[in-house]
Amino acid sequence: MIITLKKEAQQEKIDQLIHRFENMGLQVTVIYGENYNVFGLVGDTSKVDEKNVMANPIVANVQRVDEPYKLVNRKFHPEDTIIDVNGIQIGGKKIVMIAGPCSVEGEEQITRIANEVKNCGADMLRGGAYKPRTSPYAFQGLGTEGINDLCIAREQTGLPIVSELMAVEHLDEFVQNVDIIQIGARNMQNFDLLKAVGRTKKPVLLKRGLANTINEWIMAAEYIMSEGNPNVIFCERGIRTFETMTRNTLDLAVIPIIKERTHLPIIIDPSHAAGDWKLIESLSLAAIAAGADGLIIEVHDNPECAWSDGDQSLKPEKYASLVQKGRKIAEVIGREL
Amino acid sequence: MIITLKKEAQQEKIDQLIHRFENMGLQVTVIYGENYNVFGLVGDTSKVDEKNVMANPIVANVQRVDEPYKLVNRKFHPEDTIIDVNGIQIGGKKIVMIAGPCSVEGEEQITRIANEVKNCGADMLRGGAYKPRTSPYAFQGLGTEGINDLCIAREQTGLPIVSELMAVEHLDEFVQNVDIIQIGARNMQNFDLLKAVGRTKKPVLLKRGLANTINEWIMAAEYIMSEGNPNVIFCERGIRTFETMTRNTLDLAVIPIIKERTHLPIIIDPSHAAGDWKLIESLSLAAIAAGADGLIIEVHDNPECAWSDGDQSLKPEKYASLVQKGRKIAEVIGREL
Amino acid sequence: MIITLKKEAQQEKIDQLIHRFENMGLQVTVIYGENYNVFGLVGDTSKVDEKNVMANPIVANVQRVDEPYKLVNRKFHPEDTIIDVNGIQIGGKKIVMIAGPCSVEGEEQITRIANEVKNCGADMLRGGAYKPRTSPYAFQGLGTEGINDLCIAREQTGLPIVSELMAVEHLDEFVQNVDIIQIGARNMQNFDLLKAVGRTKKPVLLKRGLANTINEWIMAAEYIMSEGNPNVIFCERGIRTFETMTRNTLDLAVIPIIKERTHLPIIIDPSHAAGDWKLIESLSLAAIAAGADGLIIEVHDNPECAWSDGDQSLKPEKYASLVQKGRKIAEVIGREL
Amino acid sequence: MIITLKKEAQQEKIDQLIHRFENMGLQVTVIYGENYNVFGLVGDTSKVDEKNVMANPIVANVQRVDEPYKLVNRKFHPEDTIIDVNGIQIGGKKIVMIAGPCSVEGEEQITRIANEVKNCGADMLRGGAYKPRTSPYAFQGLGTEGINDLCIAREQTGLPIVSELMAVEHLDEFVQNVDIIQIGARNMQNFDLLKAVGRTKKPVLLKRGLANTINEWIMAAEYIMSEGNPNVIFCERGIRTFETMTRNTLDLAVIPIIKERTHLPIIIDPSHAAGDWKLIESLSLAAIAAGADGLIIEVHDNPECAWSDGDQSLKPEKYASLVQKGRKIAEVIGREL
Repeated sequence: MIITLKKEAQQEKIDQLIHRFENMGLQVTVIYGENYNVFGLVGDTSKVDEKNVMANPIVANVQRVDEPYKLVNRKFHPEDTIIDVNGIQIGGKKIVMIAGPCSVEGEEQITRIANEVKNCGADMLRGGAYKPRTSPYAFQGLGTEGINDLCIAREQTGLPIVSELMAVEHLDEFVQNVDIIQIGARNMQNFDLLKAVGRTKKPVLLKRGLANTINEWIMAAEYIMSEGNPNVIFCERGIRTFETMTRNTLDLAVIPIIKERTHLPIIIDPSHAAGDWKLIESLSLAAIAAGADGLIIEVHDNPECAWSDGDQSLKPEKYASLVQKGRKIAEVIGREL
Repeated sequence: MIITLKKEAQQEKIDQLIHRFENMGLQVTVIYGENYNVFGLVGDTSKVDEKNVMANPIVANVQRVDEPYKLVNRKFHPEDTIIDVNGIQIGGKKIVMIAGPCSVEGEEQITRIANEVKNCGADMLRGGAYKPRTSPYAFQGLGTEGINDLCIAREQTGLPIVSELMAVEHLDEFVQNVDIIQIGARNMQNFDLLKAVGRTKKPVLLKRGLANTINEWIMAAEYIMSEGNPNVIFCERGIRTFETMTRNTLDLAVIPIIKERTHLPIIIDPSHAAGDWKLIESLSLAAIAAGADGLIIEVHDNPECAWSDGDQSLKPEKYASLVQKGRKIAEVIGREL
Repeated sequence: MIITLKKEAQQEKIDQLIHRFENMGLQVTVIYGENYNVFGLVGDTSKVDEKNVMANPIVANVQRVDEPYKLVNRKFHPEDTIIDVNGIQIGGKKIVMIAGPCSVEGEEQITRIANEVKNCGADMLRGGAYKPRTSPYAFQGLGTEGINDLCIAREQTGLPIVSELMAVEHLDEFVQNVDIIQIGARNMQNFDLLKAVGRTKKPVLLKRGLANTINEWIMAAEYIMSEGNPNVIFCERGIRTFETMTRNTLDLAVIPIIKERTHLPIIIDPSHAAGDWKLIESLSLAAIAAGADGLIIEVHDNPECAWSDGDQSLKPEKYASLVQKGRKIAEVIGREL
Repeated sequence: MIITLKKEAQQEKIDQLIHRFENMGLQVTVIYGENYNVFGLVGDTSKVDEKNVMANPIVANVQRVDEPYKLVNRKFHPEDTIIDVNGIQIGGKKIVMIAGPCSVEGEEQITRIANEVKNCGADMLRGGAYKPRTSPYAFQGLGTEGINDLCIAREQTGLPIVSELMAVEHLDEFVQNVDIIQIGARNMQNFDLLKAVGRTKKPVLLKRGLANTINEWIMAAEYIMSEGNPNVIFCERGIRTFETMTRNTLDLAVIPIIKERTHLPIIIDPSHAAGDWKLIESLSLAAIAAGADGLIIEVHDNPECAWSDGDQSLKPEKYASLVQKGRKIAEVIGREL
């Protein structure tokens, strides 16, 4: 950590600050400059709070040099983490395809769509049973009934199931029934929920928050790992920007960034990013070319009658075509799909 | 709701769509134009999901004309709502001043600061016992001990207390002990938490999310009211933008907007918006001039040793000066402080 | 155009407004609803200013249904526009590769790098002679000398040259010397400059502004075409968001959007978007997979000694590798490179 | 400037870098740490380009400690700059009120409105003769005729005039005729235009770009001053964010920030920020309370017939009321209006 002091800082105050850091077990080196003096702190600075240092009137600036995360950090875990979900590996050579409707609407619907996406080449099934909706008057999901429907669809197709957990009180239900627990964008910094899934061993699909930086997202993964669960999968789904022609702006640069800084897999959700099915194929092929470990895509066989997010759902035949094209791109970059 | 159809829409598909809306009890009027046809839906459209209408291939555009919120809507509740908190009224003539440290650090600290802010003119005491922190390694708050310390400070000063609730499991503790439950920015769309506080009658301070639109914020208030709790107070604390010289960008236009669209009070938190104590006075006076119903400000008597957010905390003497200046501005705009 | 009136609008005022639109040659249809009345305007509404309509106290909302652009609109020009630059076609089957240093630093440097990028597979040479720099104390480009150096490099390699025009006063120099005139992101709404290049027939590479919507970008192209120049090439280079780990956020969804709405080609600049050479390959392959018509990439053989933007420049060997991989992806999606 | 080196940096490469900085006349101090080494550069670092330093493979991070601006920097010019415009002082005790229509529509219109705003208490007249419009088909301003109309209005009322310059070719016309040259938001980084107005002595009203950081804005002022013109006035007019209920988000924190970092005056434009006349009064009073040196507000006596921006224009009677209220707030904070 590098701390820049104001030019006018008195030596007495500087000495107090040096003393304070040394008491925390840190070694302090000082550069005396013409317009400013600088402290370099050496040692474990992960518990030094930058904002409190900034509150000291003699401090002009604070810069953290070491990353504030440890368990997810590739520096201390150089090889890729591969997460096994019922025999399907996420983070390995194979790009994992997850597909399904936004909402589970009933046993018949989810089973039918599960079969369709399986025939198209999907590896796993997605479906929301508890739905985060902007309006209290909108459909809130089938709840437990929806989870049960997903289990039936898994039984019939063999596809592992992914569903979003919104509250700690449903954790047991999810641990017992789903194969991957999704933490939604709105809950990326719901720290109690992160800690709760961190105390299980279930794979967690951690969506990036609408307005969260990559650093905050990595720290959310660190929350989960710090409670003992190493099975974290990042999922980019677009960030909120000034542009209104798409629902969100998909940030594909996160793929090489997450892979450089962490050892965890990352998958892409083009459906929520675009909010428009016509954009899904382009963004999906782009994500594969950029190195994503998987794609999670909304597919519905009757989008105009879907109970939610119809406008961003692909029809099965379009999904099948996307899988075919994605497979060719995967091959030329040395992967499988 | 106004629905624009594509030029090439077939009459048969148009008739199906008309039929579908009529089955929902809506009246449909059609404008046949040169380049497009338009439906106007008349009736209760609050359950029509725009995104599903958009999914229909013959639809080009959907525009909601009626607001999607009812209970918080000033149209149906023209007079201002005034919320009584232990005899202090929020939303009335008096501008309510809430102050205190970011975190409760112990009984002695919170009681000392409570006395100081009371002497400076504060009406209520704030203090975090459960803290949302980006890093799992940062101080997470004193928890129940912090809530108890706040209660002792209230006993000694008479100041009602405001504290942030992060998880449903602590709801009872908050209902029994605090006077206003704060929902933090990161939990503004934690819908299970909104519903939970909606089932109580406790006043709720609803912070705007970092990247949430005004409409989403109003809908979050609607969630709370739809469960039966009418005591919702909006709190603007800055939104995330590209600017990095401040922690967030304080959006004061929300004051007249919230007052035009809803009947609920709105207070401003300049501390989290600015992230720098030097900016607090300017932003506080601006908020009063713009019509805010209150201010919530971080005050600490030893910011550089605070356990969190030291750089954005005012010292008591600076807070006292701010209150004096704010009072004069309140008077010239016909209010009190 | 759809205009929603306030419920309380008096019939007299409504009639005045109808009259006013009819005087503009528009046909007005009215829907009388329970909570609002709606006007549908039929005819050429491109000269109706939404903001002035909004200023009418009886108007609640205005929505434009027809696009405000004509010449760039695919509706009126369904086939793709292909732009010929010295025999190289932009917008056709071949994906065009443009490469070169951020700044021209001298004849020897630009000629050497031109040869290198040609050997790697580049089709055109880029290089800045007039540089938009945040600081007046930073290197501002070699100016006319730089343009001359580019011409020498073209002579030696046969590569057409692309360079940024910053001021109308240099227009003649650019028309005479460069093959594609670049309009930089900061000048995307410098309307006098747009009109000036619109009065030539030179191909124009129109970069998207840092904070400009897709609609504004399309309207900037419309400015150029409306002056008579049909040779416009869109270039996405990232938008400004809250994320700081990349210089900008590359928005690849613009590729299918621009292709759906306009008939013009679109190329991608991953270098300025990422601001970090380590991210260029991933983003470049993603852009090709998403359907881009070309890539413009900064390449420098000694980035740490470059006079500008060294951190985002690829070394030639890395560029060569990127071209190889890009070629394979181009092939599997039915294009060439 | 503080440069952090990667842990694995070889001593030979470190020595080369030290040598390179010493050759630039800088003094280099090194801190050798456990996980990283740090260079502190002492001397005039304003010509060191951070991005090129970053391009060096042994560098992990670069942080500028000294501000990159000199002439506008309050450190080297501690007292406030007061700019005299025909006897009216901007930056002094008096808060300067500038008002008028978005566009000049003719001699009669601008003279009539000039008289009205003068009667309401305005000190100066604004009016656009050259208009930056998103659409090439929208009204582009009266040009020279509009400038002449403004001069007639000045003659009749004595109000100095402010108008936007969009192109260098009109500079002489502006120098001869207007009292303050406005540089619009879209041209804030049109560096040729900045340099051109910098070569005059005319006061320049420098609007903040839609998506420009405070640092970039200060650097734009530095461009003007570095050419010899010391008469720069900052003007905040809102930044582009995700929020769509206002046209832009007004950032009032810039007032104390600009005043701390520079010695130049700053005025606020609430009209373009809000885009809705109903919000103007609240934001204007807020700006005064926050310490603004002036306000520039759109006023039109017949907004619904204005040729541009009608929806954000105040009627004269509302402006008069705003001036009255603003005057009282100015008084309680020790200023005049």
